[in-house]
Amino acid sequence: MPAIRLVGGQLFPGRDALKYFIVYAHPEPLSLNGELMRRAVTGLEAAGHQVRVSDLYASRWKSTADADDFPRGTASPLIYGKASAEAFNNGAQSPDIAEEQAKLLWADAVILQFPIWWYGMPAILKGWVDRVYARGFAYGVGTFGGKKWGERFGEGVLMGRRAMVAATLGGRAAQYGPRGVNGSIDDILWPIQHGVLFYPGMTVVPPTVFYEVSRLDAETVDRLCQSYLDRLLHIATTDPIPFRTQNGGDYDEQQVLHEHLAKDGAGLKIHQAGTTYSSNTSVGSVGDFNPRHIAPSSRRDETWLRLSSPDE
Amino acid sequence: MPAIRLVGGQLFPGRDALKYFIVYAHPEPLSLNGELMRRAVTGLEAAGHQVRVSDLYASRWKSTADADDFPRGTASPLIYGKASAEAFNNGAQSPDIAEEQAKLLWADAVILQFPIWWYGMPAILKGWVDRVYARGFAYGVGTFGGKKWGERFGEGVLMGRRAMVAATLGGRAAQYGPRGVNGSIDDILWPIQHGVLFYPGMTVVPPTVFYEVSRLDAETVDRLCQSYLDRLLHIATTDPIPFRTQNGGDYDEQQVLHEHLAKDGAGLKIHQAGTTYSSNTSVGSVGDFNPRHIAPSSRRDETWLRLSSPDE
Repeated sequence: MPAIRLVGGQLFPGRDALKYFIVYAHPEPLSLNGELMRRAVTGLEAAGHQVRVSDLYASRWKSTADADDFPRGTASPLIYGKASAEAFNNGAQSPDIAEEQAKLLWADAVILQFPIWWYGMPAILKGWVDRVYARGFAYGVGTFGGKKWGERFGEGVLMGRRAMVAATLGGRAAQYGPRGVNGSIDDILWPIQHGVLFYPGMTVVPPTVFYEVSRLDAETVDRLCQSYLDRLLHIATTDPIPFRTQNGGDYDEQQVLHEHLAKDGAGLKIHQAGTTYSSNTSVGSVGDFNPRHIAPSSRRDETWLRLSSPDE
Repeated sequence: MPAIRLVGGQLFPGRDALKYFIVYAHPEPLSLNGELMRRAVTGLEAAGHQVRVSDLYASRWKSTADADDFPRGTASPLIYGKASAEAFNNGAQSPDIAEEQAKLLWADAVILQFPIWWYGMPAILKGWVDRVYARGFAYGVGTFGGKKWGERFGEGVLMGRRAMVAATLGGRAAQYGPRGVNGSIDDILWPIQHGVLFYPGMTVVPPTVFYEVSRLDAETVDRLCQSYLDRLLHIATTDPIPFRTQNGGDYDEQQVLHEHLAKDGAGLKIHQAGTTYSSNTSVGSVGDFNPRHIAPSSRRDETWLRLSSPDE
């Protein structure tokens, strides 16, 4: 359906409606994160898409994974993974957990949106992962042991879905570059992008990261909201991060990368096939406080990009 | 004081007593983690050291950082970092947060002990970091802006203390090796070791990581407890991970690593000076379930090691 629709003053190609699930974690609705989230919802819905948001702070999400997650009780001693598998298999999960799993299954695109605190997710979002990712649902799928180690990293229950991290940072972009003191943003996000999103089978597109967000004027906020929406609208056609699949032939029977691949490589980039991904984000100029949108380097359709991105 | 004391059947050199602070996060006291923690406390105290433990699950630690962390209220909208600085400076912090900060200041050695869940800390421990690491205490120390970006990564309030991650994993060691499918354990722990422990100035020694912990016999558990205690007892003399300090001359004014350093390097290892650290853990043989202790490669005193480690 190649019709052109006019939405919010923007031209973009019509397409099948997508189902977006945004897992959102920020304690203050009046924050940049709050604005980004609301504008994303409005923009996606205006474009004909369906959106569901889990606002973890607003719903007072239970962060801590513990025995209280099992309403029918558990065996003692508690082995959390085992208990989660039993509850999952017997329809005996805590309702809040089951509801999040249903949203994940409903979605075409899963977005984790959060401020980066101490180089990772806020605890409330980490607790969403710890609790929602039950054994049998997000892991422990397939055979584990011997030469096979499960259906994961490219396979799994959430296969077919797209996923993206959308994160804000107070620091400068240069400090998160390939040689920046914090470590590169790609490497910092590895446990989330590879470990949380790619693990149960989702296809992960490059993150949207906003730097130096503590001092923004209204015009900049507007531009950041627009670039976030732009990334969301293009999620189905954005080239994903080319993570190697575990069971696709690149790894041996111990799930170790074959010697002939990425021979001279080092670091986490060896786990990507084909062209190496390079960060694809909205960054601040070094030393100033005016983040600007950098056009994604990995998109196929440059024409589409120009049509839809007002700040090109 | 080179006297030899006999403790727990082991000979080791006498030394000044150290103050150990173990931040412990596991929901089940009867777990391997629980056993490791208790045996560590017993062993350290028997050796004449002082130990304090924050058992986050037992104390029902509040995981989520939010406005409730400020008993005297905060400005609206909530800017968590700013609110944490005001509370810290005015002695108006939540008592549980202030108490943990006091323990950090008391300690000579800080241990984060936890099961690795989804490639990171359990939410309850991440929430300990989010809440205890107030601005002005763990970050925002020194000048930020211009050519300087704070006293961090080797400097800071917790300078002079040693720190170590002690973690358990269900997976096989090979899968966390330099080319394992999960990414190397060093890279996975980067956000914690570099981002949480090195950031406020602590000296980080290689982690103690136990693999394939879901099927262990009593004898193996005993051996793992012994090797954990061994690592703890040697923490003051173990060669640290040689992370480069931010303000020591290796980074330029944008906190980007100078071009002439680690010229041919890639990945997070470029941020280490001198000999590259290689993992230093207790691992399982590939494909079996009998983890064995691998002698740390980075210790200076081999004689001492042989004296104190019963499984050499």
